[in-house]
Amino acid sequence: MIDPKLIAWGSSGSTIRSIAEYGAKRAAVVGAENVYNFSIGSPSVDPPACVQESIDRLNATVPATQLHTYAPAPGLQPVRQHVADYLKAQFGVPYRDKDIYMTCGTSTALAVLCRVFLSEGDEAVVPAPFFMEYRVYVEAVGGKLVVVPPQEKTLQLDMTAMEAAITEKTRLVLLNSPNNPSGGILTRSVLTALAAMLERKQKQYGHPIYIVADEPYRELCYNAEVPFIPSLYKNTVYCYSLSKSVSLPGDRVGFLALHPAMDDYDNVFAAVYGAVRIYGYICLSPLLQLMLKDCLGETADLSAYEENRDLIYGSLTKLGYECVHPDGAFYLFLKTPGGDANAFCKRAMEQYDLLLVPGDEFGCEGYARLAYCVPKDMILRSLPAFEKLAKEYGL
Amino acid sequence: MIDPKLIAWGSSGSTIRSIAEYGAKRAAVVGAENVYNFSIGSPSVDPPACVQESIDRLNATVPATQLHTYAPAPGLQPVRQHVADYLKAQFGVPYRDKDIYMTCGTSTALAVLCRVFLSEGDEAVVPAPFFMEYRVYVEAVGGKLVVVPPQEKTLQLDMTAMEAAITEKTRLVLLNSPNNPSGGILTRSVLTALAAMLERKQKQYGHPIYIVADEPYRELCYNAEVPFIPSLYKNTVYCYSLSKSVSLPGDRVGFLALHPAMDDYDNVFAAVYGAVRIYGYICLSPLLQLMLKDCLGETADLSAYEENRDLIYGSLTKLGYECVHPDGAFYLFLKTPGGDANAFCKRAMEQYDLLLVPGDEFGCEGYARLAYCVPKDMILRSLPAFEKLAKEYGL
Repeated sequence: MIDPKLIAWGSSGSTIRSIAEYGAKRAAVVGAENVYNFSIGSPSVDPPACVQESIDRLNATVPATQLHTYAPAPGLQPVRQHVADYLKAQFGVPYRDKDIYMTCGTSTALAVLCRVFLSEGDEAVVPAPFFMEYRVYVEAVGGKLVVVPPQEKTLQLDMTAMEAAITEKTRLVLLNSPNNPSGGILTRSVLTALAAMLERKQKQYGHPIYIVADEPYRELCYNAEVPFIPSLYKNTVYCYSLSKSVSLPGDRVGFLALHPAMDDYDNVFAAVYGAVRIYGYICLSPLLQLMLKDCLGETADLSAYEENRDLIYGSLTKLGYECVHPDGAFYLFLKTPGGDANAFCKRAMEQYDLLLVPGDEFGCEGYARLAYCVPKDMILRSLPAFEKLAKEYGL
Repeated sequence: MIDPKLIAWGSSGSTIRSIAEYGAKRAAVVGAENVYNFSIGSPSVDPPACVQESIDRLNATVPATQLHTYAPAPGLQPVRQHVADYLKAQFGVPYRDKDIYMTCGTSTALAVLCRVFLSEGDEAVVPAPFFMEYRVYVEAVGGKLVVVPPQEKTLQLDMTAMEAAITEKTRLVLLNSPNNPSGGILTRSVLTALAAMLERKQKQYGHPIYIVADEPYRELCYNAEVPFIPSLYKNTVYCYSLSKSVSLPGDRVGFLALHPAMDDYDNVFAAVYGAVRIYGYICLSPLLQLMLKDCLGETADLSAYEENRDLIYGSLTKLGYECVHPDGAFYLFLKTPGGDANAFCKRAMEQYDLLLVPGDEFGCEGYARLAYCVPKDMILRSLPAFEKLAKEYGL
């Protein structure tokens, strides 16, 4: 009677959750300092001071009924105008307030946009590795997720495979750069080639193919450029949130931005409103919207993550592990010795209290994801465990 | 290519919005004090002091990473436990933390629960008048909304019509008491009879029929009892938010509560998690959750609404208008002279700057909704306009 798919979605997806639960139980037994939880991409660095200051100021000065009243569904006009102006100044795309729709983080945006762009049988193309929830959002609206394997070793985008994956059923390409889980960044040359290929395919099939650019990690890049996809391809919806770079994952504040020149703009615009409506999102808290307005452009102190990256990448490769070099985000993708990522992660967890997530979850077998958005001393404390594990695998 | 239904949902539903826009334009011409906006159910009374105090305290004392980190999807355990304990103490139903799922207001809860309980072709029964978004939530998941007309004049539930509307396709009954738009309250005797009827129907059809009780107006009742539906019928999901009684509509903080003894509990539980997941809700801001914990049980000063009710009901009936006597919420449902509610509301708006919402929107033709959650002096200033309008209709 109740949709079995819904029950399955509600019962699964708990790999990370069940790892976390295991970790909590182990912490009670061996002490929290002896459990090395690399499983969750939740920022460990304090948000910038502007967050606390902004909330303080808003709570003290904005009349309560105004601070807590309904915002318009897409967001407060001054906030949307501010976001549009910010994006325009930063990236040169002439966004207007109406192009901006405030969302509960990028997850809302992704779920809504899958509903907007995909109907039963339509295909969404995603290069692996990819964030696992993409599959859920696509399949929940009757779409088919077409996963494009990356180049071996580097895990960079394989353009030939990408082109082969685009069919007349393709309506959507999902991109996430800097990438969760690999830390990879799509370069300007790759994106330029991708844009040209998609333009060709649009002409060939006679309908738009939209890119959804999921970019909460934009500022988390280490000596690398993160090109702004909408400036290279107009049929792009840009999705951003304060979750990662500003260390506010729980606040669920973000936005989507429709390119003002995108094809079929009016219908996309109306469909976004429609999808938000049927999913029961009414608006985003004015307090949190105004805080976003105050803090957009600020970041947490991201240098800690770069230090962590250097430390963990250096240490693990020294121990003999093969790792994808991460240029951004706060994840390391490690090639699992022995090949079977699930077996490796199970052993790491049960024998050494090292909590990692198997790469199968992200569409790449034979890898494990380490979230290094953790205190540096935890990384240091974990190294002997990684060393023993390496020896077990004969590295 | 883009789902036309989605475009329609995104383009429509704007009756109240377009009335508000008209009002804003008129305010610029004739002055805000000369526009009588009764169209929006947004509380005019300040939230209780605990809201500002709680946000202050949390922002000052909870470590920032903790205050802004991901909460578990269903909510923080101490918050859910507090809600369960509160409901148990208030209403005697033995809720546990696991029965509580924090939601972005009751709208999220309603959208999610329609997805949970309805598949293509299933029926949801709702007594008119009802909140217009119910139709959207039901139809968006392929369900059919079966509207049961109320008793004439009183607009009370018509039990005979209700029973006739329940078929083997009925999976869900949507109830909203105190009611938007009528202000009516479902009495204990009505609910007891309804529960008995539904029990019979469940046996007859061999499957559960769930009630979703949408009760953000629970504390907004004037010398009337608002019975707790889950204590009368176990297959009930109770939905509550701080939007109305606590004057926090924009914060989007609420919860749903599954009755611990409901039929098929485990599947409903999993399906709620699944629906929340596919709609892209990740969690509710810890700051707002903890504020809810601090403020649950408090209300804004609701006496202003009771005064408003007495004033507007008394004044309009004196002028010859027929009104449904509202026992709760902050709406008055007025029988529109001349019969055609759209014509009446158009005339009220264009001739007298009285902004009302036609009852057709709520499944009752020949009525208009007045939201009296407005400053008292606005009501007083509006009375001459209502008087002139009454005369035009020969009252």
